[in-house]
Amino acid sequence: MTSWSGSATISTFLTLDDISKARKNHDPSKHKTPVLKLLAEARAKGYEAVSLPLTTEKWRTRWEEMCLLPSGSDRDSEINAEQKAEVWRSRPAFLNDEVTITRLDEAEGVTVMISDWLELDATDDWVRHDAEIALKQELAYASYLNIQSAILPAPRNREHAASYARIVNSCLKNTPYIHLSISLPIYNPSVLQHTQNPSLLFTENITSPESLSPSVSAPRLFVSGSSSEKLSSAPESELNATWEMWDLIRSICDYDTRLTLTLDLAPPLPSTIGVLSKWAAESVRSILLPASTFIANAKGYPVLPKTAQSFIRECMIHHPTVILSAANAGQHTRGGETAYAQYVRHLEKTSPAVQAAERAGTVENFAQGYQDYLQAPLQPLMDNLQSVTYQTFEQDPIKYAQYEEAMYRALLDWDEEKIVFCIAGAGRGPLVTRCLTAIERTRRDAIIYAVEKNPNAFVTLQNRKEREWGDKVQLLFGDMRFIDVPEQADILVSELLGSFGDNELSPECLDGAMRFLKPTGISIPSSYTAHLAPLSSSKLFNEARATKDLKSLETPYVVMFQAVNILSGEGGGLSGRCGPQIQECWEFEHPRRDPVLDARGLPKTNSHNARSAKLNFYIPYAGVLHGLAGYFEAVLYGNVGLSIHPHRKDHISKDMLSWFPLFFPFKEPLFLPSNSELQVSIWRLTTERQVWYEWHAESFLSSPSFAQIDATLQRSPSLGSASASTLPSGGIQSPLIDAEDPVFMQRARHMSLDSSHFYETVKIGQTSLHNPGGRSSWIGL
Amino acid sequence: MTSWSGSATISTFLTLDDISKARKNHDPSKHKTPVLKLLAEARAKGYEAVSLPLTTEKWRTRWEEMCLLPSGSDRDSEINAEQKAEVWRSRPAFLNDEVTITRLDEAEGVTVMISDWLELDATDDWVRHDAEIALKQELAYASYLNIQSAILPAPRNREHAASYARIVNSCLKNTPYIHLSISLPIYNPSVLQHTQNPSLLFTENITSPESLSPSVSAPRLFVSGSSSEKLSSAPESELNATWEMWDLIRSICDYDTRLTLTLDLAPPLPSTIGVLSKWAAESVRSILLPASTFIANAKGYPVLPKTAQSFIRECMIHHPTVILSAANAGQHTRGGETAYAQYVRHLEKTSPAVQAAERAGTVENFAQGYQDYLQAPLQPLMDNLQSVTYQTFEQDPIKYAQYEEAMYRALLDWDEEKIVFCIAGAGRGPLVTRCLTAIERTRRDAIIYAVEKNPNAFVTLQNRKEREWGDKVQLLFGDMRFIDVPEQADILVSELLGSFGDNELSPECLDGAMRFLKPTGISIPSSYTAHLAPLSSSKLFNEARATKDLKSLETPYVVMFQAVNILSGEGGGLSGRCGPQIQECWEFEHPRRDPVLDARGLPKTNSHNARSAKLNFYIPYAGVLHGLAGYFEAVLYGNVGLSIHPHRKDHISKDMLSWFPLFFPFKEPLFLPSNSELQVSIWRLTTERQVWYEWHAESFLSSPSFAQIDATLQRSPSLGSASASTLPSGGIQSPLIDAEDPVFMQRARHMSLDSSHFYETVKIGQTSLHNPGGRSSWIGL
Repeated sequence: MTSWSGSATISTFLTLDDISKARKNHDPSKHKTPVLKLLAEARAKGYEAVSLPLTTEKWRTRWEEMCLLPSGSDRDSEINAEQKAEVWRSRPAFLNDEVTITRLDEAEGVTVMISDWLELDATDDWVRHDAEIALKQELAYASYLNIQSAILPAPRNREHAASYARIVNSCLKNTPYIHLSISLPIYNPSVLQHTQNPSLLFTENITSPESLSPSVSAPRLFVSGSSSEKLSSAPESELNATWEMWDLIRSICDYDTRLTLTLDLAPPLPSTIGVLSKWAAESVRSILLPASTFIANAKGYPVLPKTAQSFIRECMIHHPTVILSAANAGQHTRGGETAYAQYVRHLEKTSPAVQAAERAGTVENFAQGYQDYLQAPLQPLMDNLQSVTYQTFEQDPIKYAQYEEAMYRALLDWDEEKIVFCIAGAGRGPLVTRCLTAIERTRRDAIIYAVEKNPNAFVTLQNRKEREWGDKVQLLFGDMRFIDVPEQADILVSELLGSFGDNELSPECLDGAMRFLKPTGISIPSSYTAHLAPLSSSKLFNEARATKDLKSLETPYVVMFQAVNILSGEGGGLSGRCGPQIQECWEFEHPRRDPVLDARGLPKTNSHNARSAKLNFYIPYAGVLHGLAGYFEAVLYGNVGLSIHPHRKDHISKDMLSWFPLFFPFKEPLFLPSNSELQVSIWRLTTERQVWYEWHAESFLSSPSFAQIDATLQRSPSLGSASASTLPSGGIQSPLIDAEDPVFMQRARHMSLDSSHFYETVKIGQTSLHNPGGRSSWIGL
Repeated sequence: MTSWSGSATISTFLTLDDISKARKNHDPSKHKTPVLKLLAEARAKGYEAVSLPLTTEKWRTRWEEMCLLPSGSDRDSEINAEQKAEVWRSRPAFLNDEVTITRLDEAEGVTVMISDWLELDATDDWVRHDAEIALKQELAYASYLNIQSAILPAPRNREHAASYARIVNSCLKNTPYIHLSISLPIYNPSVLQHTQNPSLLFTENITSPESLSPSVSAPRLFVSGSSSEKLSSAPESELNATWEMWDLIRSICDYDTRLTLTLDLAPPLPSTIGVLSKWAAESVRSILLPASTFIANAKGYPVLPKTAQSFIRECMIHHPTVILSAANAGQHTRGGETAYAQYVRHLEKTSPAVQAAERAGTVENFAQGYQDYLQAPLQPLMDNLQSVTYQTFEQDPIKYAQYEEAMYRALLDWDEEKIVFCIAGAGRGPLVTRCLTAIERTRRDAIIYAVEKNPNAFVTLQNRKEREWGDKVQLLFGDMRFIDVPEQADILVSELLGSFGDNELSPECLDGAMRFLKPTGISIPSSYTAHLAPLSSSKLFNEARATKDLKSLETPYVVMFQAVNILSGEGGGLSGRCGPQIQECWEFEHPRRDPVLDARGLPKTNSHNARSAKLNFYIPYAGVLHGLAGYFEAVLYGNVGLSIHPHRKDHISKDMLSWFPLFFPFKEPLFLPSNSELQVSIWRLTTERQVWYEWHAESFLSSPSFAQIDATLQRSPSLGSASASTLPSGGIQSPLIDAEDPVFMQRARHMSLDSSHFYETVKIGQTSLHNPGGRSSWIGL
């Protein structure tokens, strides 16, 4: 469990200039080495961590002399260089003055920057090959010095990103322990190459100016913050470009947990935050924040542009290390070096995530330490809960207030002289107490039957009846599906809901309890719905994979989401056939209409509790699907409800603590391009003894098609006018497949016409059913 | 190993009509049951197998009365039906007259057809639910009768194909042993709904006419062969539609080996065979061939249309069961019932695959029993080969003839008085013998040094020198990389090539042997190239997955391809950036130019033998990528070569037997839509001690884009005119990333302009590197 206080670690970046200045002025009587002096100074200034380049210009010079053929060099010098290179390749090693640090104490707690002029994705095979050897040499040296974390230069060349990724993967596999972090601007800086006068800022601090000549290196391109206005119109595809490289790298590295991201905020951010939300789902370890990214406020103090502010606030969920550079360069007139770190701390304190976590009574505060932690859902029907579990859930101030309100209103609406309540599943009695209060508030004459099957909780109930409740409460020990109750109830109250509504078998339990509800009686809850949205989270994907228990692997998890991104957007998608961001799967109602019952009043089979849903989601921005987020919403009575639906929970039951969402994992991640559509199928399946879910997703790409419009319209005149709205919905009771309607659906390429364009939808991928064949049914009936 | 004689099994389909007629005329003194009589008759007619429907009309009637609500039924009959259904759902069981067979001897060797009116993909939830129960009931009954194989009704509803698939998967997981085969028309018959007067033919044989009323069922739609002309223009997307459903089903069933395809040839085939090649990669078990598919030839005998002929010939690689139906219905005037089976046998005999396998001297004949069988590549450097292995390869009549021809021509071209040959890796001596013949043919003065490191083969060499070769041949025992040779050779001959050219370490071995070649000397081979193509094969995917040995899992295999489909097409793709169907990765040349050598004349590192390639393939038809097919081509001397490149082998070295292609498997299948592009990266990697390959693929979809043309062109005027041809090629020696060129490459959406359209390429998927980090290097140097 991590604490929110100090979400961010603030680090300073020592440049080669800093180190070389310290060398010049070194006084061995005070500090053993110049770097140790710099480290002590950084600590004194309040920095919690230090980053520095691992190698010096000397190393760059030697490497380039060996490995790059200068244009116009003669044959002899070529052979000479190649001979040196071959000797080096056979035994890669540094000379003393080619590295910045040489001692364990200089390396302690330090994050090193790998030589950023290494082109791991160079177009030239030999440059790539020798850059790989150099990278491995640097990492081996860093490991020797017990360095825990190294930042790699950003990939720059989409065409050879797979080579970059292969090299990183090879390093992860061959270098134990060390964490590698890929530095990456949030969007592709190449679009800036056409803007006037791009300046290289962050790079200046790392390498000396003369080394930046374009003939020998293609350093990371960072542009000054002042050009941010020009960039705010960068199209989404550009913003996806660097993410796509990151996705390729981590996929080839098979989501290695030692691989993280260092986001480079030197390039100005786009003005819309929407496209940035994808970074929430990635393992962001650090943020590079050069002083040049700051702008001066009216008083001259360094502050960040609005988008950067919001983005850094959002990033606090990652507990990032914020690496400040050039803070000592005096780029702003007021505040001095400490102003930058103070400003980051200000952003931290004003981060919505941090604030929610720190405010007592919020679910974020309640969930401290449980963010992105996978829990198996409770199985209260199979397992008898512990007292401490009941206690945790009884802490929820909202849920039981809502129940009391629902019972209160039901009482007001109910016309009987004497009202019979039945609490089905009383647990340790929280609903009994609330029910008594509701009765008191209405001054109605009522009695309560409290049914409970957990023998241990039943002791608590007896104790409370004796001490608190008295004769108004009758206790009944047994399973609500089989027990006999002295009289039928007017109002049946239960709290059997799971994070997905029906996932703790409320429908099955209430089928049994309906026997003792009067035919016109009220059930609280009266209905509940399950909701889904497609989710991306490399953290959750890795957590689910790491689960050793096969049975757990095939079930959904209860998770307090944090480092996740919901991939779906609002709106109908290009085809117009998509629903909203979060979509309803199905509903259960109580009491339910006319099931066929046996002599005992129980359903003969559980078929009526089977459900299925097929949902169409619009995916505006490219992302990787790792699973589905599951939510529920319940109507207790009238307009009193419970909800963990992200868009509606604050309206319906704000600050309710009892339910985290459900996470349905997929075995294999599925790449979803921008403007694609995702079709999710989910089934609630049941046998006599078991209930379980299965889920599946297929992705489609819609794109405007002018090449085939004419041909298609001519071929099948009735097809062009078919639209999504004329399709049969899933709820139709008829078993008949009409010969006319399915034409549209049976086509591999679905077509539709909107007002202006003709779109074609082509299947592009799928991720297979996670929970096949009911092997892993997870609740015994 | 399977024999080619009898590729196809010919089966007859017994209809309910056949069975009911046999019941009427049953004579218990001759046969125990009517079905046993029919089986005996079928055997007498020469059929090798029998298929029949498992259930009768009685069962259909009962199921429909219970599970379908007839329109206009009253409340009481609804409840009555629902009560019956609930009883059935809780204990699904047949009555005696609802099934066609009841005895083990009736079921022996029989393939049953599951009730084809079961709508496993119905739009209505309840119909689907009850169809699933009925299907499981039928399969349980079939299992009880020890039936090995059942054919399931075709999926019909793309919208609910995932539900169909989930049900099939559940059946596979819950029913041990039985094989399930999905019947499937080759293209989506729904396009026929607009043609005039579609007739239902095959279905008529299964169910009685009155049951076909569209209000209670949506039976498989099969149309008569006579409408084939109308259909020949069916677009490719329609032809992909049923394949896409099949792909979805087998993917959700995780490529279960008990799941196969029964292709239904009742609908007429398209006139082009190209799009049909995808079925070669699928596990086709049976072909349904109703008499109505046949047309009458000039003499009135039943024959098939040309496309169907070719398709069935191609299908012989699957060793299918061809299920003939209605052959006894007298639909053709000549030939009687036996004419249909005779015609299928004719197609079998004239199948190119069968003919190639039966013709002595072909690689197909030589490879009998090795089709689609995964073999680990030889590692002759690490392992000393057995005499029997040498013997197998010495059988190749073409390879050694080519070598002799190459040596002969090199001798003619060589100007020295006395010529020194060195055979590097002489094995048991086949090249020595050929070399002596070549010398004799040219009457030149020459001697041969034969180097061999295998001590066992060296005994054979000594024996042959003594008995056959005499003084013209000097034997040298040792590894060519380290041995000293008395004099330098004019012509160095080696046969170290693997299926991918360099994969048995020819480059590394010849680096050593170059020490004893004169500076201007000749190497035979003088060069070789490696070639790749994307491949689909569910068989090979399953075979590779089944390999238990982790190390083997991460290496390529030697395979004689059969049930595979090369996914790439010729032509540049929509973007114009794609290469041909099979593309060259890299080349090795001997003697190679100026490597830096150590004092012993050996390279200091193996860096110069590292290679990488990035290839763009055009994928015309949707398919699933399971791996890469690898081939080689070698120039021995001048225009004498060796090739297993599918397009060129017959031209260069026809009927050469020594090499099957290589198969590079992917861990996860990758769905590729029609008209997509596949970018394949492959690396030949090396350390001091190891050589290995890694490979990776990303898929992209190009589509015409008119929505963004204007915006993009305005945003970045220079972008629109960037074209693939101006990009730096992979071979450029400069390490410099030019600031101007990479703009195009670094964009996530690659754009290009051809003469008429503006295309946009969007990444849609990837399959990860199979062999990460060099863990599984497979050849020790």
